[in-house]
Formats: sequence, C-alpha cells, structure tokens
Amino acid sequence: MSNPVLVEVLRGDHVESAHRGAIAVCDASGKALLEIGDIARPVFPRSAVKAIQALPLVESGAADAFGFGNRELALACASHRGEAAHVELARSMLGSAGLDEDTLECGSHWPGNHEATIALARSGQSPTQLHNNCSGKHSGFLCTCRHIGLAHRGYVGFEHPYQATLREVMEDVTEAPHNVGNSATDGCSIPTYAIPIKNLALGFARMATGERLSATRAKAAKRLFSACMAEPFFVSGSDAADLPLMRAAPGRIFVKTGAEGVYCAAVPELGLGIALKCDDGASRAAEVMVAIVLARLLKSDEALAAKLDELARPAIPSRKGVAVGKIRPTEALSR
Amino acid sequence: MSNPVLVEVLRGDHVESAHRGAIAVCDASGKALLEIGDIARPVFPRSAVKAIQALPLVESGAADAFGFGNRELALACASHRGEAAHVELARSMLGSAGLDEDTLECGSHWPGNHEATIALARSGQSPTQLHNNCSGKHSGFLCTCRHIGLAHRGYVGFEHPYQATLREVMEDVTEAPHNVGNSATDGCSIPTYAIPIKNLALGFARMATGERLSATRAKAAKRLFSACMAEPFFVSGSDAADLPLMRAAPGRIFVKTGAEGVYCAAVPELGLGIALKCDDGASRAAEVMVAIVLARLLKSDEALAAKLDELARPAIPSRKGVAVGKIRPTEALSR
Repeated sequence: MSNPVLVEVLRGDHVESAHRGAIAVCDASGKALLEIGDIARPVFPRSAVKAIQALPLVESGAADAFGFGNRELALACASHRGEAAHVELARSMLGSAGLDEDTLECGSHWPGNHEATIALARSGQSPTQLHNNCSGKHSGFLCTCRHIGLAHRGYVGFEHPYQATLREVMEDVTEAPHNVGNSATDGCSIPTYAIPIKNLALGFARMATGERLSATRAKAAKRLFSACMAEPFFVSGSDAADLPLMRAAPGRIFVKTGAEGVYCAAVPELGLGIALKCDDGASRAAEVMVAIVLARLLKSDEALAAKLDELARPAIPSRKGVAVGKIRPTEALSR
Repeated sequence: MSNPVLVEVLRGDHVESAHRGAIAVCDASGKALLEIGDIARPVFPRSAVKAIQALPLVESGAADAFGFGNRELALACASHRGEAAHVELARSMLGSAGLDEDTLECGSHWPGNHEATIALARSGQSPTQLHNNCSGKHSGFLCTCRHIGLAHRGYVGFEHPYQATLREVMEDVTEAPHNVGNSATDGCSIPTYAIPIKNLALGFARMATGERLSATRAKAAKRLFSACMAEPFFVSGSDAADLPLMRAAPGRIFVKTGAEGVYCAAVPELGLGIALKCDDGASRAAEVMVAIVLARLLKSDEALAAKLDELARPAIPSRKGVAVGKIRPTEALSR
C-alpha cells in the first residue's frame, strides 16, 4: 500500500519534488478524527516522544527536588538547537544534581542553529555533549537516576533499569509494546521503538487530557505540556519549526518534531492527539503536514487558522533571498 | 503512476524511511538499457547539467584564451563545497578575464563543507559569492561573456543572450525543448528547465561519446568530461558523493549531482548516459541510486563493482560514531 502524496515542493509553477505520508488524529479513547495512509505501520518516533519520556522526571519528585521550573522541564522535552541559552540550562540542570557534562552519554555535535555554530567557532570553541540537541532529555534522565538512587553509568543502554522504566511509561501511555524486537538505537544512543502512529496519536491525546492515565501521571503530563507551551524556545530553538507553531497560539498547541519526518502534537482544548510520519523522512514535509492539520482542526479560530495555514506554505528562497518556489500541502490534505 | 521504492533507510533491522524514484540509462542513439519508473515526467536537472552548460566556455575559445586547464574546467562544471582551493580557483578564473567577485550574480552562502565553514568562521570572515557552490559555473559564464564581447551584467536572467545560448546548447545535446514554459529559477538565480530524465540520459551519453554532436561540440564535451574525471575534487569537494564515485575508477566514470535528488552520470567505455531523480528530492537516496546503477553497469570489473556497491550502502552513525543504521538499494534496484 502506497501512502498518498501529502506535500509538494514547487519551483516556479512546476512540482519539483513530492512527499508521501500517513497521519493519525484521535482522542484519548482512540476514536479517530482523521486517518490518512497506513497508520498501523510501525515507525520510530525518535525525538517526538521526549515529553512522554520526561514523565518520570516529574513523577519521581526529581524535578521538584532540584527546583526545576518551566524552562528546565521544557528542555527535558526538547530537541534544542544548541544555542547558548540551551547549553547553559542543560549545564545548570546537571549541576543541580551534582553532575556535569561528562556524565552525559549522548555524544556531541555542532549546534543545529547555524548562528550558534558560527558563534561557537568564532569563540575558538568546539561543541560538547551539552550542544547535542538531546542534552536536555539526557540531563533529565541523569537527574532522575540521581534522585531515585539509581547508578547512572550506562543509562542509555537497553538493559539499564532506567530504560526499562521508560519502556513501561511508553507502553502505559501509548498502549503499544516496547521490547527488543521493535527497538533500534537513536542518534543519541538511547533505544527507540517502532510503533504505529495511531498509538502515538493516542498517547498524545492522553498526555494532553490526562484521560486514561493515573492521577499522578495525568498531573505530570499536564505540567510538562504546560511547561513546553509556556517556554517553546527551550523545546526547540530560534530557527526550529516547533517555535512558530507553539507561538501561534500560546498554551493551546503542543508540537514536537522527531527525526526522519515524524511529528507528534496535541490540541488540549479539543482533546486530540496528532501523529504523522513523512515516508521519506523529510522534516520540511512533516512540518507542512503538522501545520495544515492544526489549521484544519482549529479552523473555527479564523485568525489562528490563517496563521497556521501560512506556516504550511513556506517559500523557497534563492541564494539572493528571492522566492523561487514554495512548499505546500496537496489538495488531499488541505481541503 | 507511482515510481517504485528504490532506496530504504534502516535503523537496526527495521525500515525507517523509503525513497522512490525513476532512472534512465541509454546510449547516444536513445536506445534504453535500463528504465525504471516514469522517465518521461519533466524534472529540473538543477546543477546536474553544469558540464553541458560549460560547453560554450570551451567552444568559444574562452578557456584557451584564459589558459584554463583541467582544474578550471572542472570547477566550471562543479557544485563545489566552498573549500579554500575552490574559492581561490574561482577568484583566479575571474581574474584571468579581468573580473572580480562583484561581477558574480549567484548570491553567497556558507560553504557546503562543514570544516570549511568552521575555518571561515574561526578566521573571522564571512562567505562571499565565491563560496557559492555554483561560483565556478558562474565564473565560466562570465569569462565566456567577456571573451565573446557580450555585456555580462544580468547574465543570470532568462532574457540575457547568454541564457539563450545555453538553451540552444541544452536543446542540441538533450533534444528536449527549453523555453519559458518549462523554466523556473535555480538557487543561484539562473533559469533551470524541467525536462524528462530520458533526455538527460541521452544528453550524457552524447557528452561521453561525442556521437550525434558537431565535431567542435564533441571535442569540447570530451575535454570537459576528461577534466572533471582528472580533477574530481574541483567538481565536488572533500565530503561530496561525486568524489569517491569518480575516484573509484579514474577516467572511467563521470558523475554530477543536482539539487532535489537528481543525478546525471556517464560511462564513456560503455557509451552510456545515466539520469535519475529521487521523487522526494533526497540527495542521500540519489547517491545510493547512482552508485548501485554504476555497480551494475560495471559488474564485469568485479573489484570496481564491489567498491561501487559499498558506496551504495552507507552506514548511519550515532552521535558517538557507532553504526545504528544504513541506507541501501531495494532488491528491485540491486538485483
């Protein structure tokens, strides 16, 4: 079965490239509002589920013990762009627990934000593990291990007890099995598990509403989502697609990108979770898909829907900054 | 019509993403050796046709007048990575014709090569138009205009006489129409024209063999291809896919990437031209496609075919450098 073409890339008036994908939107009971393509095929959510993976940080009491506010909780759910404020906050989170950069096991890479890379190079420095886009998530893992008295060394490994905890949480929230059979290794060295996007949408509906979660988990989910929506820069970065989407309607939209064309999102006021995957892994297409789905779901707020629709149709500039093309949802997706 | 899945991206043992595409391989008469997918649909070749666009530089006598050797001709056909040697050679080409960077109309961007970007930032400098991956092509255009006495200002525009010359050359070599109806603007501000990949394959077979071209054009084509195959670094760069492909068999393989998942190539000893397009525009997939097609065409040279086959199966590393996945051709493409 072929998933439909959902996004087109135009140069001038001609379609230059096209992206296929699948999209699931449902409520906390699993009742579907929108289903496009194969929503049962397992996909790796990658970074899109960081908010679910951050639940133990709150539930364990670690976040309170270390005095974490919205920014720290947002960073624990983040794929940040390695900007100075992200790096310093990750360092500070680790410091709160008496840990430092060397305890991270995510590896290092130059910042995702180009200006941050140039500034780092100009200062004569090189990137550390704190610049890794996942350093906030890893810092959250380490702080929780510290708080509950779990030896953190090797915390990224499938066999480490903390990864077993994360599997239990993911299974509870998404109702999808997480085991060695559907696991692989993410870029930051932790396990990632291939599950259907319909389960991801279900999980995000539950995170947004608290329905069908324990009272403790529902409260933690609400706190994490509120933190991300209050501090979207710390979930993403200056040039990240998540930022304008969450800023378009402060406190009303939660979105989180994942590598290889995954997006998860939720609209708490509608009680809906959203998950999608671009077949070929392109972020540019996943960003258009999530924006147009949000525009459709929130169409009763015309000003907001117009803003989201605009985010779903980015221009492609030449090297001189002239628009020479655009990306847009296909009719199948936008009508 | 859906093009078939030709490339899979694996994480662990699971397919994470997939890429569709179309491939045409034919000889200089248009006789097909391999046709996969819709080879009649027009696609923008983007930078993949730079060698054809460099023909007037040689045919006009400009290259000889300015003393250009293999490196300059290779750079005129290049999508270079903005490394110091590329930038200096583009500057020198312009200088030969009494021109400088300010005559370029391609716009600037940071080098495609990451190390070159870091080095440039560390030196306190910013990129110029010479760092644009197309600066060699543009320098070739400017030098030719200068040699034939054509006012160069505005040379990137559809209406400029030099672009009309390039359309005539492209039509002669590919037998596909080039006009305002199938044109759009490339990232470096020159026109690009959507034509079928079967015509692109035909054009590259003719470039490689000289068949069905005028004697002057055949000689210029041979000189340009020889220059590119002799100096592949100047057609590409340290981290470009073109480089290991051409180095795998010096003088026997010509390849040239184009943006949005296009690749053109030729195997002169077989008299064959190759053109392909990944539907979604992914370079990583187009690189795998061209490598595996070359491995198949050159299978009688077992050592070379093995090397090309290896280039068609790159590993995906974690941020710690551990292989956590790979990219590979599907069976449809590799058998």
